[in-house]
Amino acid sequence: MDATPQEFDRVLSSMCTRPHPAAARAARRFLADNPGDPATYPDVAALEERAVDALGTITGLDDPAGYVAGGGTEANLQAVRAARDLAASDDPVVVAPTSVHFSFQKAADVLGVTLRLVPTDDDHRADPDAVAAAVDDDTALVVGVAGTTEFGRVDPIPALARIADEADARFHVDAAWGGFHLPFTDHDWHFDHAAVDTLTIDPHKVGRAPIPAGGFLARDGATLDALAVETPYLETTAQATLAGTRSGAGVAGAAAALDAQWPDEYRENHERAAANATSLTESLRDRGYDVVTPDLPLVAFDLPEPAFEAVREEGWRLSRTGSGEARIVCMPHVTRAMLESFLETLDAVRVGASGR
Amino acid sequence: MDATPQEFDRVLSSMCTRPHPAAARAARRFLADNPGDPATYPDVAALEERAVDALGTITGLDDPAGYVAGGGTEANLQAVRAARDLAASDDPVVVAPTSVHFSFQKAADVLGVTLRLVPTDDDHRADPDAVAAAVDDDTALVVGVAGTTEFGRVDPIPALARIADEADARFHVDAAWGGFHLPFTDHDWHFDHAAVDTLTIDPHKVGRAPIPAGGFLARDGATLDALAVETPYLETTAQATLAGTRSGAGVAGAAAALDAQWPDEYRENHERAAANATSLTESLRDRGYDVVTPDLPLVAFDLPEPAFEAVREEGWRLSRTGSGEARIVCMPHVTRAMLESFLETLDAVRVGASGR
Repeated sequence: MDATPQEFDRVLSSMCTRPHPAAARAARRFLADNPGDPATYPDVAALEERAVDALGTITGLDDPAGYVAGGGTEANLQAVRAARDLAASDDPVVVAPTSVHFSFQKAADVLGVTLRLVPTDDDHRADPDAVAAAVDDDTALVVGVAGTTEFGRVDPIPALARIADEADARFHVDAAWGGFHLPFTDHDWHFDHAAVDTLTIDPHKVGRAPIPAGGFLARDGATLDALAVETPYLETTAQATLAGTRSGAGVAGAAAALDAQWPDEYRENHERAAANATSLTESLRDRGYDVVTPDLPLVAFDLPEPAFEAVREEGWRLSRTGSGEARIVCMPHVTRAMLESFLETLDAVRVGASGR
Repeated sequence: MDATPQEFDRVLSSMCTRPHPAAARAARRFLADNPGDPATYPDVAALEERAVDALGTITGLDDPAGYVAGGGTEANLQAVRAARDLAASDDPVVVAPTSVHFSFQKAADVLGVTLRLVPTDDDHRADPDAVAAAVDDDTALVVGVAGTTEFGRVDPIPALARIADEADARFHVDAAWGGFHLPFTDHDWHFDHAAVDTLTIDPHKVGRAPIPAGGFLARDGATLDALAVETPYLETTAQATLAGTRSGAGVAGAAAALDAQWPDEYRENHERAAANATSLTESLRDRGYDVVTPDLPLVAFDLPEPAFEAVREEGWRLSRTGSGEARIVCMPHVTRAMLESFLETLDAVRVGASGR
């Protein structure tokens, strides 16, 4: 079989990255274990508790309820599902900014709830007044994003939490990507900063765990109880996860990644990524490109289609936002040298284009 | 971190097993790849097509639609979801035998559909007359199981397919575990044997792929279209999978497992497992235990609670059915020597019990 793993040296598009070596080792060791069957696989089940506790430490929760999910999509879906099942309304609505990850569209489709999207402000953040106007008696859940997919924006989490609270709705924070940068910033974004009910934070993104390792956290056990389905066969009496059989590699990898890197290596990574994003922004502006000033380490800028295609042809993987900007995510594998090499390609294709 | 991977030498309870060495190698290589983002990770996306084609070969489908799911629970859930969304009824019902895996309860809960369970016959198989009586105008899906979780039974798949067809309902076969034994038996169970719309077959069970590698197959692309949600960011325009980011290790491991073992090693495994199940049945009956005559290689027998607890205390992992039988799954890692060792333990605890 001649397929080869993707090299990361030109990948600027992904919110995933090379696993940390300790996490990769742990994943390989536990490749055959199934945390969905803790009676047969007790050690990996204990590792999941460690991982959840570590995620609680990062997100301001002393006694976290939660689990290592398949990914952020599952975590977001479970948040919507819990809100739907605990809601008073027969026709529950989820209110979220237009910047939410499309997993909320998927969740609405799967779970049969209405998703009401509210336009963001001029800086691509949730607008609390607009969200408040969109909330009604049927609203079961308000969503805030701490590190949006397209622009890396952090919504005003405490303000959104107050709006949810006033409407007797639950409040979910999607920090799938942002969660491993935000502890090293001044943002208010987690359980200790606001009345957050549930939160998504993915070890397999900036956390450098291998896939599959998403994180679903809840302030209280009642949320997990709402998700639990009775199991007749296993020695566990109920199962709150979306999957049955689950990946021991993902769980062990997450526990090892958190153990190895929190807080120091994660802090170093954030500072390096933030410096790279700042430097890239300056370099792009120097060249005359319009750049959306980054908050978290994600850089979006105007790049005409021919140039976008030309850099892709040189092997660079970058993506586009819905409004057409090119988007570069400064992940742990993205070095200053990589970005300089990217800029060289950009300069070369620009010369090529103007020389025609 | 002092957690250790579970040894398989006393595991008789699990439907998962040690990954095939080639599959484990492939999984490790592709640990950092995300088949949910084929624009960035094209090679692992191509491996997924190979895996789906191979699963189609096994299940009688020349041009399979489908994907490598997180597991059988996801595949079953997606089957119910497609049926719900394609159904005429506003209140779609799923009709299934009581022997279905509890993932159908989970699917009903998540998807907001009614699950109507029909008692099995005296041999733990779906009863076509009872299923026909339970089907009505609201029935969107009928489910048959090809290798039940508790007793390894194979339902009368063609008869159930006809019932579904007569009711204008879709028909799903859950062959999550059975699918890698059934090709080597005389059973009719797949797309070429009956009007099957969707089918679950999990490489990470008897297929010896690492977790996570379930299999969701559909006869036609319209099923996947019904599941697809538009994606605004990625270069893929729509995504039919339940997850977003997905495990390259699982996909590559599945492709490698199928490539290495279909059909010869799978045939050998089936024959060995079937012989072990027969031999175990005889040995248990010789000792006076009531044994449910196995069909596929899964042996259920009456074992009083004190003896069950005692063998667990000796490190053996076996499970119980809902009706109380002890249950042993003759997975690829289960050898004749293991079973003989188990019988020695069983004899020792029995002597212990009677000697008190």
